[in-house]
Amino acid sequence: MKAEILSIGTEILLGEIVDTNAQYLASRLPALGIDLYFKAVVGDNMERLTETIGRARERSDIVICTGGLGPTEDDLTREAICAVLGEEPLVDHELEATLRGFFVRRGYAMPERNVKQCWLIPSCRAIPNPRGTAPGWWVERDGKIIVAMPGPPSEMTRMWENEVAPELVRRHAGSVLITRTLKTTGIGEGNVDEMVSPLLKTRNPSIGIYARADGVQLRIAAKAPTEAQARDLIAPVEDEARRILGPAVWGADEDTFESVVGDMARVAGVTIATMESCTGGLLASTLTDVPGASVYFRGGLVSYQTELKVGWGVPASVVEEFGVISPECARAMAQAARERLEASVGVGITGVAGPDEQEGKPVGTVHVAVDAIWAAPQVMSYVFPSGRTAIKRRAVTVALGLLRQSLLGHRNEALV
Amino acid sequence: MKAEILSIGTEILLGEIVDTNAQYLASRLPALGIDLYFKAVVGDNMERLTETIGRARERSDIVICTGGLGPTEDDLTREAICAVLGEEPLVDHELEATLRGFFVRRGYAMPERNVKQCWLIPSCRAIPNPRGTAPGWWVERDGKIIVAMPGPPSEMTRMWENEVAPELVRRHAGSVLITRTLKTTGIGEGNVDEMVSPLLKTRNPSIGIYARADGVQLRIAAKAPTEAQARDLIAPVEDEARRILGPAVWGADEDTFESVVGDMARVAGVTIATMESCTGGLLASTLTDVPGASVYFRGGLVSYQTELKVGWGVPASVVEEFGVISPECARAMAQAARERLEASVGVGITGVAGPDEQEGKPVGTVHVAVDAIWAAPQVMSYVFPSGRTAIKRRAVTVALGLLRQSLLGHRNEALV
Repeated sequence: MKAEILSIGTEILLGEIVDTNAQYLASRLPALGIDLYFKAVVGDNMERLTETIGRARERSDIVICTGGLGPTEDDLTREAICAVLGEEPLVDHELEATLRGFFVRRGYAMPERNVKQCWLIPSCRAIPNPRGTAPGWWVERDGKIIVAMPGPPSEMTRMWENEVAPELVRRHAGSVLITRTLKTTGIGEGNVDEMVSPLLKTRNPSIGIYARADGVQLRIAAKAPTEAQARDLIAPVEDEARRILGPAVWGADEDTFESVVGDMARVAGVTIATMESCTGGLLASTLTDVPGASVYFRGGLVSYQTELKVGWGVPASVVEEFGVISPECARAMAQAARERLEASVGVGITGVAGPDEQEGKPVGTVHVAVDAIWAAPQVMSYVFPSGRTAIKRRAVTVALGLLRQSLLGHRNEALV
Repeated sequence: MKAEILSIGTEILLGEIVDTNAQYLASRLPALGIDLYFKAVVGDNMERLTETIGRARERSDIVICTGGLGPTEDDLTREAICAVLGEEPLVDHELEATLRGFFVRRGYAMPERNVKQCWLIPSCRAIPNPRGTAPGWWVERDGKIIVAMPGPPSEMTRMWENEVAPELVRRHAGSVLITRTLKTTGIGEGNVDEMVSPLLKTRNPSIGIYARADGVQLRIAAKAPTEAQARDLIAPVEDEARRILGPAVWGADEDTFESVVGDMARVAGVTIATMESCTGGLLASTLTDVPGASVYFRGGLVSYQTELKVGWGVPASVVEEFGVISPECARAMAQAARERLEASVGVGITGVAGPDEQEGKPVGTVHVAVDAIWAAPQVMSYVFPSGRTAIKRRAVTVALGLLRQSLLGHRNEALV
């Protein structure tokens, strides 16, 4: 089954709002056995919209549209579908009663221009939308499907998950594509490729290797008649890849570095504290993006100005001898965070986020230290050739990696 | 002049990498007087790519492609353009010498498959790319232009700015569209609309009103033969809008809330300190996203666990009487941050980021306080009905808004 995704709206075309819908839908199609061939954005223009939907319908089995279902003159998705099929819209009285009720419950009378949200055409049935005023359209004729969903992501995703995807699963007759992504750290793309090369010969599942900001990922993708069969194809390959890559694998699929570190800390009964300079609190903020972080995250210090570092326990002698931008300072920050905040592991980050160099150290210099009660302190140093916010992000990724290593060490010690 | 933007690559189609190029290009076209009609993504497939480029060339004056210029078999942009025009590629010996030199300088021999990056066709000239191995293609025939640029954003943007945009400016004969965006806070979309309604009647410049995460924006857009003339049309309307909206306007165009607050603090010679609970350091991190923040940002405390708040100067009596999730606690945090970190203004944020309620307060409850030496403390309280990271972001936006208000007060006092 071949699909195209069409995002409708001048604001999306001009990049004034980010089109998250198309990416969401693209990520959902493979598991339904649907191949995505084309993705397009078209503005609120009747002629171009009609041409685009018509052409997509010619060459694909299913055209998935988002946007253009609002009540205004600019919202033209329904009109364009009518034009493509040569069908006339009629107000559906059941839909109209529902929509008027929707407004009444909010204490308004329905504006008359909203009536077009109650249109139907002979080839179309309405898709319920409890989160908004615009029902979706499921249009089916001559073996081709057009699905039109509203643009607001919360309305669209609910409609997709509860209505459209289940219907597509029911009609499904081919094969599904299921993927499993293993996430690694500390090994380069070429190395991963070499290590898993015996696995790369298989066609189904197929294996892809991708470099990402938080490490190299191994993507195992299997095609099979059912999801369960696809998972059965993936399982032995995943086991073998995990055996080969060992502790370099830190997570899978939706795992984030911070969620994995958080899980490990919770299981180990360990608490974490931070002292940050160049990252300005981004590490603490990232750690607390994980629900339930209060169990293991004690708190953090953002020592943006040097005297604060000393006030919070970094020895003045370290600053004098090595400077603030030094591995020694990072280590002292980690220790001070652990001690001052009474945690079992402390993290210290210092560096130069730019735009100017500092203490003669170039922009991008970063020192990250972890100091845990169960092991000797660890420090890593880098020079990241990137911009200010990217330097901050990369320093946080390094810190999470070091934290994970430290927690792995804690676990291994507990096992001894 | 009508344009289409075409992003080429299976990874972009499937949403595995985010397509920043299309948005970048879309934002650059209006100032060149070029109308964007269509934006599409197509995978690395010869048939669909050829069809898509051919069709775009039929209906538009200029087709702007990014991606697919690498050396591998998957990189098919050149091949597809050849197919569309029915022209045969030939290796250009000058390009080849340049490319071999590029590899030699890096200490490699050029892999032979890179030779296709030295192709030219009769209708095409190469566009220099000092940042990579793939020259762009400027293809011109029958009054239609195809521009093909490499996918890596750093290569693409340099090529666009230094080569493609200047060439398009030279050919430009029509009118340019210049926009100016005023950013407001503290007034709803409907109110802004009502206040500026006398301005909304003008056609050129035209005015649009948009609700954004950091407030309502007023977009003034003017068409004129030259950029200078367009700016002359905008200026009086901008002046009038600023007069009407007064201090609700906090910035324009690329300004961010944190950059504006930072500018004000620097000019006022004021220093800022923070104590955060539910935002976990995101406010400190956001403040330090601005280059040069070290001049006015002293540092921050992330008091994720209650005892830390008390240890850092929040009176135990406040916690006992009002709880941690209270306006009183936020105010005490702001004061403690200001005093402990010896700043002139302190910010305190406490709340419930979820997933569970706390002290009987629902998820999304947020109290934000600002305590400055020049004024009485201010507290704002909200319940945001959103997810964990969105609650954090919205609380930070509120804090920046309060900081700005406080700094405005400081400025007005200085003027008295």
